[in-house]
Amino acid sequence: MSPILEDSSNGGLPERDSYAKNGFVHIKNPHLDLLPEDILYHFDLGTKTHDLPSMFGDVKFVCVGGSPNRMRAFALFIHQELGLEGDSNNVADICAGTDRYSMFKVGPVLSISHGMGIPSISIMLHELIKLLHHAKCRDVTIIRIGTSGGIGIEPGTVVITDVAVDSFFRPQFEQVVLDKVVVRKTELHKELAEDLLQCSKEIASFPTIIGHTMCTYDFYEGQGRLDGALCSFSKEEKFEYLQRAFSSGVRNIEMESTVFAAMCHLCGLKAAVVCVTLLNRLEGDQISESHETLTEYQKRPQQLIAEYIKKQLNLS
Amino acid sequence: MSPILEDSSNGGLPERDSYAKNGFVHIKNPHLDLLPEDILYHFDLGTKTHDLPSMFGDVKFVCVGGSPNRMRAFALFIHQELGLEGDSNNVADICAGTDRYSMFKVGPVLSISHGMGIPSISIMLHELIKLLHHAKCRDVTIIRIGTSGGIGIEPGTVVITDVAVDSFFRPQFEQVVLDKVVVRKTELHKELAEDLLQCSKEIASFPTIIGHTMCTYDFYEGQGRLDGALCSFSKEEKFEYLQRAFSSGVRNIEMESTVFAAMCHLCGLKAAVVCVTLLNRLEGDQISESHETLTEYQKRPQQLIAEYIKKQLNLS
Repeated sequence: MSPILEDSSNGGLPERDSYAKNGFVHIKNPHLDLLPEDILYHFDLGTKTHDLPSMFGDVKFVCVGGSPNRMRAFALFIHQELGLEGDSNNVADICAGTDRYSMFKVGPVLSISHGMGIPSISIMLHELIKLLHHAKCRDVTIIRIGTSGGIGIEPGTVVITDVAVDSFFRPQFEQVVLDKVVVRKTELHKELAEDLLQCSKEIASFPTIIGHTMCTYDFYEGQGRLDGALCSFSKEEKFEYLQRAFSSGVRNIEMESTVFAAMCHLCGLKAAVVCVTLLNRLEGDQISESHETLTEYQKRPQQLIAEYIKKQLNLS
Repeated sequence: MSPILEDSSNGGLPERDSYAKNGFVHIKNPHLDLLPEDILYHFDLGTKTHDLPSMFGDVKFVCVGGSPNRMRAFALFIHQELGLEGDSNNVADICAGTDRYSMFKVGPVLSISHGMGIPSISIMLHELIKLLHHAKCRDVTIIRIGTSGGIGIEPGTVVITDVAVDSFFRPQFEQVVLDKVVVRKTELHKELAEDLLQCSKEIASFPTIIGHTMCTYDFYEGQGRLDGALCSFSKEEKFEYLQRAFSSGVRNIEMESTVFAAMCHLCGLKAAVVCVTLLNRLEGDQISESHETLTEYQKRPQQLIAEYIKKQLNLS
């Protein structure tokens, strides 16, 4: 493998101050403006076929999550919470022309699915960031609402991520660019995380904490599960690894947060990761809670984000 | 990062000879038999809730691809091609209880979607391999039918992969196991690839070749695209990289083949990767062909696999 390099684009990084100055999304690609047309292939949208500024120009909040059904449910929930006019059943999938992602817009909120894993969310983020740029959106906050495995915390706890770490507990994301490995930072927006924690205290109906989130490339061997098709380690080695993760500050494990944090940071987007834990990995590997319990757990990040958005819009 | 290790499980690798002896899938996890119940969470199936041997015991061919709609279309196409009884419109999604993957069964053929990227297909493969094990399936052939970017070949060409390579053109997959990096082989089944090439000659309606397939973690920066939200390299650096890929034998680029080859090889599954190319990356980055042309291209691997399956079942 090539040597690991410091991210050379860090020199020109949009600092939060510069973000605050004009509020636009930062595209870090000099080639993009030379394109006569930009086809956002995995959204089935494009700059020549769609009037992106009029479709998306008023977007202030983007919420993303793995499952298309969950992100549709979130859109309907937000429609109701914001007291928007019209029948929420008419909220249509803007990406209906493709089945790669689903996208719903309700007022200033965009709800998008991203599938599972770093590569899947990374494709979505590239096209989303270009969409926000083409649509001339300003002051956008982006929040990933997901599910995760907890470490040493009660199932159903909501974890707000302060920093995303990799499988080696390092606060970084390694991006392969051509055949070079570039290292990017994975911190999330500190004030946003604190504002969200404050919101959770006001709701006070489920436990919420701030902690590190570990992001892996794999659900089974990479997360120390003993129940995959392949497993070459012992129960003891699994626990030793998870205990080390806990000691380093990790409170939950999922599969998208490092690239999400890295890309949002580079592009000047105020970003948070808010995941509910479906189980405590120190007690088992299988997700065996009842369907009803899991459904209730999955609504928790949605409730929290709805509360936050209402507060920002002076609706709460 | 931890040192890269040779895969210690290679010593007990199922050789093709041992595969031929009993034909069962090889689960390489001593913990699995100790589980009182195995919940295949992302399929919404389980050993206590479903009679997997009676549901899946007769499966001989598993075809997987990224898009749920495409895999449903493939199931309907196979239903028609095999001349199966019953209304193909009644082919139901076996994983309807979840929106993570879609799964359809028509006769001995299982058609499953896997989403985009290595982590997404890896979760699916763990649960699929356990499913085939629990169902006591024998002599299963698994084929990924996908879309890809071509290098130096006409768009619409179908590439049958001989070996999957990573971004550095190495025929290997690095799997993180706890915090160790394990290196696995990514060769595909040679005779199966040759049988598929022979089938394509018999159809003779589109160009088909055997070549290396490069598998990346990213669609934009990792594949040298100049049209992402982030791009730090020049047009010349992009072409130099793609030319080096071509010189090393790479004919197409996609995002799942290395882990697919590695896991199928370890578990003794006869596996192939058959992807159509939607564009020639030496001529551009955007997928701008008409919807009709892209739809026709995507049917090519399906036609080829249908022909192969019919031949194996003595139906052609």
